[in-house]
Amino acid sequence: MKIHTRCELALPAWLERYLADWQEPLESAEQRMRLAIALSAENVRQQTGGPFGAIVVDENGGGLMGAGVNLVTSSELSMAHAEMVAVSMAQSATGNWNLGANSPAQLVTSCEPCAMCFGAVPWSGVNSVVWGARKEDAEAAGFDEGDKPPAWAETLEKRGIGTRSDVLREEAAAVLAQYAHGNGHIYHPGNS
Amino acid sequence: MKIHTRCELALPAWLERYLADWQEPLESAEQRMRLAIALSAENVRQQTGGPFGAIVVDENGGGLMGAGVNLVTSSELSMAHAEMVAVSMAQSATGNWNLGANSPAQLVTSCEPCAMCFGAVPWSGVNSVVWGARKEDAEAAGFDEGDKPPAWAETLEKRGIGTRSDVLREEAAAVLAQYAHGNGHIYHPGNS
Repeated sequence: MKIHTRCELALPAWLERYLADWQEPLESAEQRMRLAIALSAENVRQQTGGPFGAIVVDENGGGLMGAGVNLVTSSELSMAHAEMVAVSMAQSATGNWNLGANSPAQLVTSCEPCAMCFGAVPWSGVNSVVWGARKEDAEAAGFDEGDKPPAWAETLEKRGIGTRSDVLREEAAAVLAQYAHGNGHIYHPGNS
Repeated sequence: MKIHTRCELALPAWLERYLADWQEPLESAEQRMRLAIALSAENVRQQTGGPFGAIVVDENGGGLMGAGVNLVTSSELSMAHAEMVAVSMAQSATGNWNLGANSPAQLVTSCEPCAMCFGAVPWSGVNSVVWGARKEDAEAAGFDEGDKPPAWAETLEKRGIGTRSDVLREEAAAVLAQYAHGNGHIYHPGNS
């Protein structure tokens, strides 16, 4: 039986150029979120995927470990959500699947993680997660967030993973609303 | 700011050779599961990752669309669970993130999906999921399955995704138990 044996996640070419205008360290949660949101907006402008951006940073030092945007339609991989991409790029850069192995790592995402990305958090070794827009904001724009446990953030806290919501929520939600307003393609098995 | 811009998922070299001994179509759920379990066992024997295997098949025709094994330690990517790998390889082969776009697709996995892989199922476009070992079997072997909604299988059914549990459960669980048993031997040579 024959199968495909490789697949690649590759950030769009614009992303590396775009980061040249940003300065490390990203000290505050707001500074970090500003970058995640900027990536979400630029991903739409560049037409490389949905309105979602995420970064992984060295929690204490504020150095950038990885960045990601939603690449589902451009990569044809359904797992290519911004959080999964950012985590994978950071793991690839450090050569370690455990992002918190040496010092605390933080995942900062423009929108509350969906069911898949929530489930991926504990496996990645990050020590905290920060998000901007809420599930309701994503749903108002037509996105499906999947089925998470009712007290999903608490399940992360119980594992020792810090959580913080609503960081620059309005700015993050505005990118989602603008995407929906612009008739952005909402990919979903039911309506693609 | 500088970041890593690519990462790759690559099946171990043995897997393609291994499949040469298997015949399509994989008609019954048991035939399909036998392959998923065989991959889980061979992945341990070859020391390329954890005791988990998965395939994606054309649900009606029984053709193999993709295969995966757990590659977390060998790829240093925490998302590289067998289900994620099999789904990604199938999407890469078809050039479509929506695996059910043309005809029904089925994910067959040697063990009940963890929280991440459960969350990934609806995004992949597969029409049904079949698993062998249960969460309890994985946990008994020392694995963490993460936090899923209490009625997680029902949430899939509500989305029109069929589910079937316990297919060759004993054989699948035996691979997990053997791994746990062998683990002490492999990693604590001082004790043997």
